[in-house]
Amino acid sequence: MLSSLKDRVSVRKYTEQAIPAELLNELLETACRAANTGNMQTYSIIVTQDQSVKEALSPCHFNQPSIKQAPVVVTFCADFNRFNKWCEQRHAVPGYDNFLSFTSAMIDATIVAEHFCVAAESEGLGTCYFGTTTYNAHKIIDVLKLPKFVVPIVTLTVGYPAETPNPVDRLPLEGVVHFETYQDYSAEDIDQIYAYKESLPENKQFIAENNKETLAQVFTDVRYTKNANETFSGFFLDVLKKQGYLPE
Amino acid sequence: MLSSLKDRVSVRKYTEQAIPAELLNELLETACRAANTGNMQTYSIIVTQDQSVKEALSPCHFNQPSIKQAPVVVTFCADFNRFNKWCEQRHAVPGYDNFLSFTSAMIDATIVAEHFCVAAESEGLGTCYFGTTTYNAHKIIDVLKLPKFVVPIVTLTVGYPAETPNPVDRLPLEGVVHFETYQDYSAEDIDQIYAYKESLPENKQFIAENNKETLAQVFTDVRYTKNANETFSGFFLDVLKKQGYLPE
Repeated sequence: MLSSLKDRVSVRKYTEQAIPAELLNELLETACRAANTGNMQTYSIIVTQDQSVKEALSPCHFNQPSIKQAPVVVTFCADFNRFNKWCEQRHAVPGYDNFLSFTSAMIDATIVAEHFCVAAESEGLGTCYFGTTTYNAHKIIDVLKLPKFVVPIVTLTVGYPAETPNPVDRLPLEGVVHFETYQDYSAEDIDQIYAYKESLPENKQFIAENNKETLAQVFTDVRYTKNANETFSGFFLDVLKKQGYLPE
Repeated sequence: MLSSLKDRVSVRKYTEQAIPAELLNELLETACRAANTGNMQTYSIIVTQDQSVKEALSPCHFNQPSIKQAPVVVTFCADFNRFNKWCEQRHAVPGYDNFLSFTSAMIDATIVAEHFCVAAESEGLGTCYFGTTTYNAHKIIDVLKLPKFVVPIVTLTVGYPAETPNPVDRLPLEGVVHFETYQDYSAEDIDQIYAYKESLPENKQFIAENNKETLAQVFTDVRYTKNANETFSGFFLDVLKKQGYLPE
């Protein structure tokens, strides 16, 4: 099991084989055994299998082809809507219209997603996360008809793998792990931590293809730009206001 | 493996057996194979084994005893500090001082935590999450000496189990899963979804012990109050400003 967790890769291409309903059900049951705050289960899981809904979701994920191609798309949402309704029906006054409650529900939704991901992979399925979920949360809310207090956090595509990708590089462990307290990085540390990544032929090609001088510039100027980040930050903060977690 | 994921429970009491350094290293390596946004690895993992640091962390987690008792405490942080430093050393201008970048780093830190959690459990260790991390992020930042752009998100205690807790209840699957689009809950749905939880003797005892009329009131009036949520929301929003992810 440890080795399957170590060999984990994102799979973006799937065969046409459907996921049996019983297996999907078992994976969802398993996912919900993940840890969560106070056993409040302040998340919801939206399972998309209908082609027309996948097509409506596709632009929310910048038309990455696997959304339409995967047999199952799963959107994990922070959700205090159900809990609030329960409180109100039981003469209790909910106090969850705030940022801390949102972050706790967001953490729980993400833990459940990863528990689902590991469960699916242990059954021979391939998965891929879509970080685009928070970028276009406002659009996903419309497509999936999410009420107030429900915010989409992460999306997974799931299916039987039609590709066997090689594992991608990771920073050396000493680059991301700190013992006892945080040891801030010197210029020399940074050079060492990123040396292997920068030496890889695929990353050198990436620089050339994008006409950049350094790999870091591919991130800042092409893939994750300040301008886009600021635009989508504004959208997501507006979502938190509209969904009831930040004051308008 | 699916059955071990299904049987997952939080373990709060540990034997005195230390976690071998090699195993801990293997678990950390494994955790870092989890999916992450753009392979930027915008997280850091702080491993606490020193008793004096655990004692300093203990009040940040409201003195829950397992922080001091566990052989290892692991704090998973959203971290753009390392990535920003790399960008700056490589003539790239980072644009990650915004809320979207924070949420993406927060999601990645949580995914890595859960990958670590499953890996540890597969090796016979017990774990427990501490949602208190976001409540007292400002204090944890001081104890762990976290620089700007580093925000603690979740904490796990890890050790060999000295207890074998029974699994706690979960809502029925139809209460948390939606197919295609969100089906909002009727009053009758809520009654059905919470019926089993409300029928459990331990939950009835919980109401009596707290002198409340309903289980929901134990949450709203005792465990997760509006007043505390609002106070800690303010603290956490201030942390995001101070650490560079929201405008001051």
